[in-house]
Amino acid sequence: MQTLITNYSRKQVKIYLEDGLISRLTAFLNPNLRYFIITDERVASLYLDTVINQLPNFDLYLLPSGESSKNLEEVNRIINYMLLADIQKNDYLLALGGGVIGDVTAFVAAIYKRGINYLSVPTTLISQVDSCLGGKCGVDFSVGTYLYKNQIGTIYHPEMILVDPQVLNTLPRSEFTSGLSEVIKYGICFSPSLLEKITQPELLSEVIYACLSIKAGITERDEFDQGERMTLNYGHTIGHALESYSRFTLSHGQAVAIGMYYETKQPDLRTLLANLYQKIGINMDFSLPMAEIVDFIKKDKKTNQALITVPVLTKLGKVSIKTINLDDFCRGIK
Amino acid sequence: MQTLITNYSRKQVKIYLEDGLISRLTAFLNPNLRYFIITDERVASLYLDTVINQLPNFDLYLLPSGESSKNLEEVNRIINYMLLADIQKNDYLLALGGGVIGDVTAFVAAIYKRGINYLSVPTTLISQVDSCLGGKCGVDFSVGTYLYKNQIGTIYHPEMILVDPQVLNTLPRSEFTSGLSEVIKYGICFSPSLLEKITQPELLSEVIYACLSIKAGITERDEFDQGERMTLNYGHTIGHALESYSRFTLSHGQAVAIGMYYETKQPDLRTLLANLYQKIGINMDFSLPMAEIVDFIKKDKKTNQALITVPVLTKLGKVSIKTINLDDFCRGIK
Repeated sequence: MQTLITNYSRKQVKIYLEDGLISRLTAFLNPNLRYFIITDERVASLYLDTVINQLPNFDLYLLPSGESSKNLEEVNRIINYMLLADIQKNDYLLALGGGVIGDVTAFVAAIYKRGINYLSVPTTLISQVDSCLGGKCGVDFSVGTYLYKNQIGTIYHPEMILVDPQVLNTLPRSEFTSGLSEVIKYGICFSPSLLEKITQPELLSEVIYACLSIKAGITERDEFDQGERMTLNYGHTIGHALESYSRFTLSHGQAVAIGMYYETKQPDLRTLLANLYQKIGINMDFSLPMAEIVDFIKKDKKTNQALITVPVLTKLGKVSIKTINLDDFCRGIK
Repeated sequence: MQTLITNYSRKQVKIYLEDGLISRLTAFLNPNLRYFIITDERVASLYLDTVINQLPNFDLYLLPSGESSKNLEEVNRIINYMLLADIQKNDYLLALGGGVIGDVTAFVAAIYKRGINYLSVPTTLISQVDSCLGGKCGVDFSVGTYLYKNQIGTIYHPEMILVDPQVLNTLPRSEFTSGLSEVIKYGICFSPSLLEKITQPELLSEVIYACLSIKAGITERDEFDQGERMTLNYGHTIGHALESYSRFTLSHGQAVAIGMYYETKQPDLRTLLANLYQKIGINMDFSLPMAEIVDFIKKDKKTNQALITVPVLTKLGKVSIKTINLDDFCRGIK
């Protein structure tokens, strides 16, 4: 079993990674504590029995699968249910699922009775390599017909993250591919040797651990997203805008992949990305409606009026944060 | 002008206190920044013109006055408006009002784009002596016919607090009296000499500053409410339950006053409190429906199953945190 201890300002987060871990949760859970599981229908159908058979004392809230559950109305319903179930300050939430479940659970944990503990059991590649760690949580917000992504949230860490790469065997291929684009981000921005390992299934655990180690270091040094941590947004400025524009018909991974491609200015690195995408099956066929996505980018949380602060890939394995003219940034992605 | 600098883990909060300060805000505000004012109808009718005449660049959200505005639905509406107004991460919120406005503004600031800055201009005695400082924010939550107070929230500090005791001249007498019960809390728990000053109007600024100084020290030493800070809840366990039970027909101050009386076990200190209440006009005529309020107390955020951790007044000017049997606590308040 691989372990990784991450020290944040107010919390130490323990990460355990091993194949089959989801069947050995009792080694990590306290039978005297009460757990409130938040999961979605898809994950529940696959792993809920395995989890609850190991928990003597639990409650359960089931969300519809997908990004559409990530909003304040759902948060409201969960809190309503938690109050009815009399969930106390010393009970634990347990996030069992992918990025949406992780985001919603962390946000509820952050604001329920001014903060209660939670654990994370990520079940998608994207959540195992990236979103389970660092505490960022957020829900989307609709204004009229626009959906603003992650505009409401905070930074709130779990006590523990339990990663079982074996659960990825049941992940739909498209979601696995979507997760690989975050792995490519870690490779192209921080650790080029990862890029060769992506296509080797036997190295999956190693790849997940490597991504988490990179993220642990960055978020320890810049927990509150005031500098270095922004490098993790590589590809995400355009990516988020595309997701919103497509009303989430585009997956996060595909959006970030397209985003990374257009945020990369060096022709050789663009070619490297395009080749990787082709090899792992990321579809780049998406006509970019620039005028509309520029609107989204201007409303994105990283903008500052006429300027935009974004991660810039200076060379393979090296990213810097730069503040550049928003119009220049948008012109560059045509 | 009196100043007080409070250093929290991630933020330094500057407090300025002076009569007439509300007309001299330009000394503290940056004309190049955009301010989003959150206030209520009563305060707006009295002070909004004064404030906005000093601000070149502002937006405004007006809440109905009163506790009924303190809920997630109102938070939802404010965020909706802020997104439409394109409020950015570097804009400031400005809370202009009493405890409800302070709570709602702080909570919105904490979760909007994962946290933006805010300033506080408290306009009631209770907010000037107590709730403006320490960062605790929360909204109420209804489940069926029950209203759970402050169950949703976090700890999030303003950049600056601007206190003008002169605005209290327009505060309804009943609200002023309500605020005095928090002053009595600071007196009886931490600084008995305050109790003599309460009835002397010319010492009002001094009294406010003294309360803020006490709270600054306690919340600096225990920002996240894990020990000493809980002493500030003296009278609030019963007080909150009474407020909820009365559906907020009982003011916070009156509820806390009754709470302090019943949480105080020493007959001589009960007499001291009763005399003070009589002198300043706090009404103790409220028949306590014990069976029902015990239910509320059991659901209060400070309970831990069969035990309750509460501040206990060991002698005049001295409070300790003790974990006692919940039934004993409830029996004691009959």
